[in-house]
Amino acid sequence: MNKAAFPFTVTAGPLPGSRKIHVPVGDVTVAMRCIDLSKGEPLAVYDTSGPYTDPKAVIDIRQGLPELRKDWILARDDVETVPARHVPEPDAGQPEHAKARAPRLRARPGRAVTQMAYAKQGIVTPEMVYVAARENEARAAGQTRFDGDPRGAVLPDLVTPEFVRDEIARGRAILPANINHPEAEPMIIGRNFLVKINANIGNSIVSSGMAEEVDKLVWAIRWGSDTVMDLSTGRNIHHLREWILRNAPVPIGTVPIYQALEKVNGKAEALSWPVFRDTLIEQAEQGVDYFTIHAGLKLAHVPLTAKRVTGIVSRGGSMMAKWCLAHHQENFLYTHFDEICEILRAYDIGISLGDGLRPGSLADANDEAQFAELTVLGELAVKAWQHDVQVMIEGPGHVPMHKIQENMDLQLKLCREAPFYTLGPLVTDIAAGHDHFASAIGAAMIGWMGTAMLCYVTPKEHLGLPDRADVKAGVIAYKIAAHAADIAKGHPGARLRDDRMSHARFNFRWKDQYHLALDSETAKDFHDQTLPGEGAELAHFCSMCGPKFCSMQMSHELRDAAEKGMNEMAEKFRQSGGALWQPAAKTE
Amino acid sequence: MNKAAFPFTVTAGPLPGSRKIHVPVGDVTVAMRCIDLSKGEPLAVYDTSGPYTDPKAVIDIRQGLPELRKDWILARDDVETVPARHVPEPDAGQPEHAKARAPRLRARPGRAVTQMAYAKQGIVTPEMVYVAARENEARAAGQTRFDGDPRGAVLPDLVTPEFVRDEIARGRAILPANINHPEAEPMIIGRNFLVKINANIGNSIVSSGMAEEVDKLVWAIRWGSDTVMDLSTGRNIHHLREWILRNAPVPIGTVPIYQALEKVNGKAEALSWPVFRDTLIEQAEQGVDYFTIHAGLKLAHVPLTAKRVTGIVSRGGSMMAKWCLAHHQENFLYTHFDEICEILRAYDIGISLGDGLRPGSLADANDEAQFAELTVLGELAVKAWQHDVQVMIEGPGHVPMHKIQENMDLQLKLCREAPFYTLGPLVTDIAAGHDHFASAIGAAMIGWMGTAMLCYVTPKEHLGLPDRADVKAGVIAYKIAAHAADIAKGHPGARLRDDRMSHARFNFRWKDQYHLALDSETAKDFHDQTLPGEGAELAHFCSMCGPKFCSMQMSHELRDAAEKGMNEMAEKFRQSGGALWQPAAKTE
Repeated sequence: MNKAAFPFTVTAGPLPGSRKIHVPVGDVTVAMRCIDLSKGEPLAVYDTSGPYTDPKAVIDIRQGLPELRKDWILARDDVETVPARHVPEPDAGQPEHAKARAPRLRARPGRAVTQMAYAKQGIVTPEMVYVAARENEARAAGQTRFDGDPRGAVLPDLVTPEFVRDEIARGRAILPANINHPEAEPMIIGRNFLVKINANIGNSIVSSGMAEEVDKLVWAIRWGSDTVMDLSTGRNIHHLREWILRNAPVPIGTVPIYQALEKVNGKAEALSWPVFRDTLIEQAEQGVDYFTIHAGLKLAHVPLTAKRVTGIVSRGGSMMAKWCLAHHQENFLYTHFDEICEILRAYDIGISLGDGLRPGSLADANDEAQFAELTVLGELAVKAWQHDVQVMIEGPGHVPMHKIQENMDLQLKLCREAPFYTLGPLVTDIAAGHDHFASAIGAAMIGWMGTAMLCYVTPKEHLGLPDRADVKAGVIAYKIAAHAADIAKGHPGARLRDDRMSHARFNFRWKDQYHLALDSETAKDFHDQTLPGEGAELAHFCSMCGPKFCSMQMSHELRDAAEKGMNEMAEKFRQSGGALWQPAAKTE
Repeated sequence: MNKAAFPFTVTAGPLPGSRKIHVPVGDVTVAMRCIDLSKGEPLAVYDTSGPYTDPKAVIDIRQGLPELRKDWILARDDVETVPARHVPEPDAGQPEHAKARAPRLRARPGRAVTQMAYAKQGIVTPEMVYVAARENEARAAGQTRFDGDPRGAVLPDLVTPEFVRDEIARGRAILPANINHPEAEPMIIGRNFLVKINANIGNSIVSSGMAEEVDKLVWAIRWGSDTVMDLSTGRNIHHLREWILRNAPVPIGTVPIYQALEKVNGKAEALSWPVFRDTLIEQAEQGVDYFTIHAGLKLAHVPLTAKRVTGIVSRGGSMMAKWCLAHHQENFLYTHFDEICEILRAYDIGISLGDGLRPGSLADANDEAQFAELTVLGELAVKAWQHDVQVMIEGPGHVPMHKIQENMDLQLKLCREAPFYTLGPLVTDIAAGHDHFASAIGAAMIGWMGTAMLCYVTPKEHLGLPDRADVKAGVIAYKIAAHAADIAKGHPGARLRDDRMSHARFNFRWKDQYHLALDSETAKDFHDQTLPGEGAELAHFCSMCGPKFCSMQMSHELRDAAEKGMNEMAEKFRQSGGALWQPAAKTE
């Protein structure tokens, strides 16, 4: 088991019925989760949980995770070392991370160290090999092609490293991988790959302890979050980020304007390019993999929001709108966009172009403000690509079902197939307390339509700060949405796990059902609430219908009958009376 | 408050921030829920909860609810009285309902007492007036037309009683209203009306107490279930049903084959038309409003299920398949369908044509077996209409998103627009423990496409028997799905409640937000977890973003700025420094 040598512990240990496997692919070794089914069929599935679910891994969050990508990065011979910046020590009670003062990397002058730059040069990086293997897990398991409606997505039978390279070169996918975050296991975000999800963590009012925040990260990826955004504000923000990055096996995103605002004491109108630039470099050196930057919200867009029911609901968007109005100048993120790209290409940080004008209510969906900004995001995406910077586009918010397709169509057209990264959308405004679900309806639909990554919403949305249970509820809801989208697209292999589940269900293999479920623990808990014990694990019924009314059990009898010939069996059935029924007396 | 004169109590009392109103419409008085918003705007909303949320109502479940429809039924002068049948007393500890031995009604010989029969004759019944008023609640509130994509539905600006009559006469809608269930408040199920939801209650193994089952019913309708199906099996089934019906202000559905099976000691092959016929009449006299009858599953369909991954997963379907095989005869529900209709027209019981061959896994979706049965359901619907019997068609199960539309298209065509009533569909098989949600994704979509009623799924689906919390989780998930569908269809007025919510949200009217939410209690609980107390109810922020990062608050400042002129304000902003920010020191 995992050993934590000091009191800071995080949730670790294997997922139920599963073991960590390390599969050599070319020159890299890819970590996967293998579910061992009771009939001896192992099923390798995509695994976002990193070393935390590997019983052989020694977890010590003070030291951070192993630097998986370090050698790959250095082997490219295009980086140099810079000293870690001096940052005031964190407040009393919160320790600095052991690696906080280690030197950092950046590109040698004039070099672009982005996966896109390599891709355009025809170079297949180890990162590309790694993501190809991950995307192929279900494909490799045999039976690959199921029906589906890809709606324009291109889904090859097998994802080759060359296919990955080509998608990145075209800007249709991004592989967020800051050279200062070698701990991350490479993953890819694009319409022609599996639909990904993001979970937000971070505290808005009282900064919680470092170990507590690291555990939130570990908890989110344990249930399947593909990337995590750290939206922390307040004190200790630099040091907290260091703890998160050093312990993150997934890409980490941030919204740098939040920290920039802290630096100017919360006054949006006091924001400036020098402060923002410094914040970008600070976070770049720490290893943040993608930045949300609200560069598409222009001064001229602000009046378009005047008649909205809910105005501007993006935090970054409202800050930049305020800045624009206060100075009556164009958004400095827009005017300095080339310089932003120059910084980002030196670390390989993806830009997630923020949708500062996303609708906060159904009433504001698909309005002029929203689409005016989307048009600018499309222009900026092209500009980022010219700098070899990887880019994705943020979208939705509150959008009724009948207006979702228009969002996807316009995004594909205006942003030239740059990956779409959407919050929800929420398909109604009156689901407070259940908005993880109201938004995952929209997320499943837009995922099918072509969105590459779905940003989760928790049950506490609009109401308060999510706790651990809320984070899990949000992640599970979004895993369901993303997986449903993969199936509807006809992603090769996507339905394999469902089919294994259905076989296990039909054959009353209860443990296999738990292990194949996206939330094994809840599935087992629910079953055991009414039928606990080992005996029930073998029963050919559950408490939902009871033994006498189990349609699955009857189906088995029917199947036997059909196999033996209907006429013959008709006679036997008549003669045998009730013998085919499960004895029910004991449980009734 | 409600007075219960004996120890049997059910959940009662008004919903938060709401009062019961009784609105006279023509000759009837329609019960509605009025949400009183703090700005003095009352909002009347559809109310399924019956007298239980009326503080003036005296609730005594031993006596049952007032007989709202009794006079309407008698005034039509087409019924006669029959004595209640003798049924053995319930098992020790469970009382017989006070009205269990009251006489029952049935049509006079040769008369059809169905809403469809009246509709075809051009008669507008009080029931039709009542449902028209209910459907109009949001329409009447002013601002009615929002955008939407009705996908073929016909949604008038105002629902007139004549429109209701016409829809029923055409078979496009049903108004389930057994003459022996006068306690029910009329409601309508059809593609051109608001999307409805159904909750299943009933116990599979151990029959719980009568009061406990009544409370499950009251609990389900409190959160918005439009109809309730009693799927009880086991002992006391007749008496339990009497308790439920006498206390149900919503239509009650059953699957009579379950009780018929009890009568033949659980042996499907021992089922027979006489036993089934007797069960139909028994339940008809009690007041069941619609029956699920698996008459479309024919002998020739059974072999089509042989290669399925999960065979037959409908309980009724597997029973009838077993019977067909055992006797090698055609399904007696099919061969006796005319006689079934003759019985049902004498009480006005709707037929819900059961989908015995619905798919139990994505792998089996939209297969030959499923659609072969659907074709027969279409034939039977026409036959039911010839008898003036109201009919709806059951559908889905497990269907991936890309195969949902085909279900709806075929159903509309094959069943000539008879209302579709679907379970989910579940869009993935691996969501065990969260199948309420995995199915509500499909439900929202198929609701938008034209399904008239969505049968809920609880989190315990596939795992065990739902408890009270599960019933609520299922109902809320399905209310969200149904409401999202109403909005997407562009149902006049459907978005009104959402817009009120968005206004309340933008103006930090927290209590209004709770009261407008589908689940007021959870919304308030979640908010109060991090910011409890009356002060927080007035705060212009919540704990999610904190005061300094509240985009809504910033939007207000922006709006003020825009109104005063951008140029002028730019100067002012510069001069005023940070004064526009909320003081944040106390909470940080």
